[in-house]
Amino acid sequence: MQKIRIAIFGASGYSGAELLRYLVRHPRAQIVALSAESSVGKAVADLYPALRGLDLPIFEKTDADSLKGKADLVFLALPHTESMKIAPSLVAAGLKVIDLSGDFRLADAGLYPEWYKVEHLAAGYLGQAVYGLSEIHTDLIRKASLVANPGCYTTTSILALYPLLKAGWLKTSSIIIDAKSGVTGAGRKLTQSNTFSEVDGNFSTYKVGGVHQHTPEIEQELSAAAGKKVMVTFTPHLLPINRGILATSYGDLAKPAEVKDLLKCLADFYQGKPFIRVLPEGVLPVLRDVNGTNLFEVGVKIDARTNRAIVVSATDNLGKGAAGQAVQNMNLMFGFDEMAGLDVIPLPI
Amino acid sequence: MQKIRIAIFGASGYSGAELLRYLVRHPRAQIVALSAESSVGKAVADLYPALRGLDLPIFEKTDADSLKGKADLVFLALPHTESMKIAPSLVAAGLKVIDLSGDFRLADAGLYPEWYKVEHLAAGYLGQAVYGLSEIHTDLIRKASLVANPGCYTTTSILALYPLLKAGWLKTSSIIIDAKSGVTGAGRKLTQSNTFSEVDGNFSTYKVGGVHQHTPEIEQELSAAAGKKVMVTFTPHLLPINRGILATSYGDLAKPAEVKDLLKCLADFYQGKPFIRVLPEGVLPVLRDVNGTNLFEVGVKIDARTNRAIVVSATDNLGKGAAGQAVQNMNLMFGFDEMAGLDVIPLPI
Amino acid sequence: MQKIRIAIFGASGYSGAELLRYLVRHPRAQIVALSAESSVGKAVADLYPALRGLDLPIFEKTDADSLKGKADLVFLALPHTESMKIAPSLVAAGLKVIDLSGDFRLADAGLYPEWYKVEHLAAGYLGQAVYGLSEIHTDLIRKASLVANPGCYTTTSILALYPLLKAGWLKTSSIIIDAKSGVTGAGRKLTQSNTFSEVDGNFSTYKVGGVHQHTPEIEQELSAAAGKKVMVTFTPHLLPINRGILATSYGDLAKPAEVKDLLKCLADFYQGKPFIRVLPEGVLPVLRDVNGTNLFEVGVKIDARTNRAIVVSATDNLGKGAAGQAVQNMNLMFGFDEMAGLDVIPLPI
Amino acid sequence: MQKIRIAIFGASGYSGAELLRYLVRHPRAQIVALSAESSVGKAVADLYPALRGLDLPIFEKTDADSLKGKADLVFLALPHTESMKIAPSLVAAGLKVIDLSGDFRLADAGLYPEWYKVEHLAAGYLGQAVYGLSEIHTDLIRKASLVANPGCYTTTSILALYPLLKAGWLKTSSIIIDAKSGVTGAGRKLTQSNTFSEVDGNFSTYKVGGVHQHTPEIEQELSAAAGKKVMVTFTPHLLPINRGILATSYGDLAKPAEVKDLLKCLADFYQGKPFIRVLPEGVLPVLRDVNGTNLFEVGVKIDARTNRAIVVSATDNLGKGAAGQAVQNMNLMFGFDEMAGLDVIPLPI
Repeated sequence: MQKIRIAIFGASGYSGAELLRYLVRHPRAQIVALSAESSVGKAVADLYPALRGLDLPIFEKTDADSLKGKADLVFLALPHTESMKIAPSLVAAGLKVIDLSGDFRLADAGLYPEWYKVEHLAAGYLGQAVYGLSEIHTDLIRKASLVANPGCYTTTSILALYPLLKAGWLKTSSIIIDAKSGVTGAGRKLTQSNTFSEVDGNFSTYKVGGVHQHTPEIEQELSAAAGKKVMVTFTPHLLPINRGILATSYGDLAKPAEVKDLLKCLADFYQGKPFIRVLPEGVLPVLRDVNGTNLFEVGVKIDARTNRAIVVSATDNLGKGAAGQAVQNMNLMFGFDEMAGLDVIPLPI
Repeated sequence: MQKIRIAIFGASGYSGAELLRYLVRHPRAQIVALSAESSVGKAVADLYPALRGLDLPIFEKTDADSLKGKADLVFLALPHTESMKIAPSLVAAGLKVIDLSGDFRLADAGLYPEWYKVEHLAAGYLGQAVYGLSEIHTDLIRKASLVANPGCYTTTSILALYPLLKAGWLKTSSIIIDAKSGVTGAGRKLTQSNTFSEVDGNFSTYKVGGVHQHTPEIEQELSAAAGKKVMVTFTPHLLPINRGILATSYGDLAKPAEVKDLLKCLADFYQGKPFIRVLPEGVLPVLRDVNGTNLFEVGVKIDARTNRAIVVSATDNLGKGAAGQAVQNMNLMFGFDEMAGLDVIPLPI
Repeated sequence: MQKIRIAIFGASGYSGAELLRYLVRHPRAQIVALSAESSVGKAVADLYPALRGLDLPIFEKTDADSLKGKADLVFLALPHTESMKIAPSLVAAGLKVIDLSGDFRLADAGLYPEWYKVEHLAAGYLGQAVYGLSEIHTDLIRKASLVANPGCYTTTSILALYPLLKAGWLKTSSIIIDAKSGVTGAGRKLTQSNTFSEVDGNFSTYKVGGVHQHTPEIEQELSAAAGKKVMVTFTPHLLPINRGILATSYGDLAKPAEVKDLLKCLADFYQGKPFIRVLPEGVLPVLRDVNGTNLFEVGVKIDARTNRAIVVSATDNLGKGAAGQAVQNMNLMFGFDEMAGLDVIPLPI
Repeated sequence: MQKIRIAIFGASGYSGAELLRYLVRHPRAQIVALSAESSVGKAVADLYPALRGLDLPIFEKTDADSLKGKADLVFLALPHTESMKIAPSLVAAGLKVIDLSGDFRLADAGLYPEWYKVEHLAAGYLGQAVYGLSEIHTDLIRKASLVANPGCYTTTSILALYPLLKAGWLKTSSIIIDAKSGVTGAGRKLTQSNTFSEVDGNFSTYKVGGVHQHTPEIEQELSAAAGKKVMVTFTPHLLPINRGILATSYGDLAKPAEVKDLLKCLADFYQGKPFIRVLPEGVLPVLRDVNGTNLFEVGVKIDARTNRAIVVSATDNLGKGAAGQAVQNMNLMFGFDEMAGLDVIPLPI
């Protein structure tokens, strides 16, 4: 079978490494170039010895021009604000682009100064960028040249709430998302707050009070679901584990409901979607069961005393929350089997 | 200085061991008896080698009668529903009792069948039992014979919200408490869900949807604070760490407020309380800073976009959430310095 | 392609679950029966929710007779001393058997009373049982009906030292193996010593001083390598992690050597073996790089000051140390591609 | 009681923070100055929020001259090779100095180029520096002006082996020390290898093969014990925990011995030493029981089959392995109670 030629820019970070884990076993993928400014000349296994033994290019400088005619698809795993500098020329050169940063996720360019502290440098491309929530925008992704791959918190939150808001089960003004993430969500960059000694045996909040940059993504999609402006309170926490996001979302019931109504709503919406697991009544997701995979799991409880739904959802922040979904989007864009390269079994223990 | 004679029933559990850690360095405490049905004849160090080298009684059978004239105070660290069988005879015999179980925490005996699945066997004692939230019921505790030491989730939640509800800052119908606990909160009993292999690298919810037995305690106290019935949505989570509870509480603002208003409310209420730390604006608590101590820390953020307060609070579930607060209550009951035996410094790292 | 029909007895333990993880993706494997005395009637996903969504039999009682004509291969993941009761009838009925317990690993029946505290009940089968160290006894395994799958410590230790002793690089009387294992090595059985609260943040030895039951296995194989009786000092430790064994082995050099000599010895011996990685000079294995896989990694240093070789080796105790190697042995026994079902990529982070 | 005035140079590192934890509760200690080049102007609680609420100086630049007449004792918690630049002037000015670096530990200046890659800048002071192993050089420490506080691996190793080698129980050429350390042993400096994501769930060796800089310290002291040159094979490992060193040491028996002989040797040698615990026969130390304290625990097994002793010892690398022993040495130097400030109880769980 013919393979597509793939470049990864910013391949030395955790999302880049996870892309490699999935792509090296993908029957239709051929890695032709890897860039990483800080590791030019090094091999992948120098940074990630677990990936030793694989036949991979060495890291080179990020150079969009060099890819013309040599690649079909570029994954951008660059820091925020870097992708917007480079994506336009890649798209213009006829390459397909999947950007894992936040640079093309917000349709409204006016939100970038507030949430990312920058003016958007390629606002003209926001219109053609497709928000890459694979199960929500499937058809648009299939035809897209530029996919804005969603954030990890975002995916975990939106997939849980989108069907319920669309169907009118929850009051739009009542949504609170209390999310907890493993450490890899913060990336590979060295900071004191990500040292083992700071994190181990500890637990903390960060960016509390409506200031996390994933908030507008969540609101953009949930507003589309609800057909009206939805604003959420979103609180991220740092778990002393490597991988996984578990989001506990709260919403006041907009009409009388039992758990099975909400589960049916979710199950119907995600009918036939191979990476979505709506858990049976009485069961809620835990991180172990999704880590290492592209799975999204969701379960529901209702607190009848206070008339609230509690929706618990889980993903691997590097899987469905980043690299896994990026590969899923690649599969959609190139007409491959949606599960190609992504059919891994999680560790049972 | 004269010492009081102390017995601990159910001393082999984690709360019992933590009581010992605090009491062996307490200048006014003398341990005269330890009971543990499952460990009769064993030494404390057989179960907790970290406590080797201390001069402590061996575990014997739980025998209330044997303590008459030989002890001044009994800590009951027994399983729920066991304390109610034994506390009355101890109180009747003139001993002071601090019960760490839930058996005397709810003033309304009618709540026990719903939340603890039992009829209360000593309902007549609920009236004289004082709810042992040291900073809230200080004067009652000083005069009490029977103190119902609060639960770990409870302490962490109530101390954060009580002053704010009392002062009318939060809408009483809007309270959501998303709490995360270390594993010792579940006690020493063997269960598959508490094995290292299940917990490590994992994160999960449990008892979701208004069913955790600490809920009515929280509501009892917050209702007293608000002067009206308060019902809360309370969601517990299990962290892959040994100690500590961090609660992220949400409440809609009942009137316009800035963070400093809420912090001032908390600071004023807890003025002069040695174990309460209201953190400065911009700072939220983390578990490391309270673990191993009797401290309670709290910080506040406001999400101005959604008009909600986010109150983050933290304790050591075995400290202020159990044994630490029990010793603090002992200090109040016997007129000792409130900090006696409890002046430990947390590990900086 | 035709599939072989497989039963797993004792399938509810960690090795059983890991067998399932590998076998459900194996192109030639069909699971026809699972037994687990303690979980009869339950589904695999009841115990291991991470394995939900797979089409697997429910657990039934262990019944050797029921398999006649219905299975081609039985994996025995039973507790020690149970396999010896059941394996003979399975072999007699013409099934192939891979036993993951210690029951058929020692060729000398006389060692069982000392190391396993039992008389062997099927000593007559020890002669035909092949010790399933895939890279060492490859040809015998190919023809075997009964394979005694090696222990986790054993595999990690023997593969590191066998070629070096065979080639005479190390003094046979000087071998010390200091091994560290993750918690899953002790299995799924509930014990106080395997609770999260005991293990987390802790590190300990166990069975120190020549008493661990894997010792005679190690000596049996290393003696065969050296052509003379080898006795080792073997010290196991418990790491606060779920998976992985790292063994640091020491041996006095029997003749002048440099690191490259020992590495060449290892590389030559394991030439063409797909799961063995002899690391380049200067690099030593770490657990992350083998966990979740069937890989064995080894590296060597020499302490020239004391004339000792330090050989560091690593496996996943549930992978190459148990279920992975069992599947590898199945592949050998049935003439499948040696890597079938085992070609997983470890998590890079 | 009069207090001594104490300065800590390099106080922002983990050893510095741990010194503060012990000293703030020390009845005879007054902290008058803290230096930290990278944190000038910051408060201790900015780096270690767990230490908030304490009345401590802010960090200033390291300035030896400023201390004249204002301090009685300086702890140097500076990086290796920094102490040798500053200690001489402090000693010359009449201050007592406890140096936690390696700069004054080796009596032979000629060893510094080999092990620390520097020429010693103050070799003339090596003669008066006392090696601060509190239980071994007690009397010299009492009279010292300059104490070279031992390393963490060193303390854990030497205290275990010194008495046994002195009494001739072990062959001096056979000593192997396989040591495992928590992450704080590497200090607070940011490195990729100390990030949570690299360390968690992982286990690794480092500086294997006779190259770790603690090796000559160990050999210096063990040689003194044995009365002849002792060379050891020392292998450090990195545990996925914050604190604690456990060393598993191996030595061939030089004469027939039972466990009780070796335990008696240790117990006799350490008679009356408050921080040393020689564990009873059958018991070996674990990290939990020493972490957070200045304790050293040791236990012994003999492998009669191979005629080797296995000596297992444990300390908190920041306690007896660094700051705890430094405070103990301070107590000796100033004639305080040896346990002053150090009488903490470890967490039982």
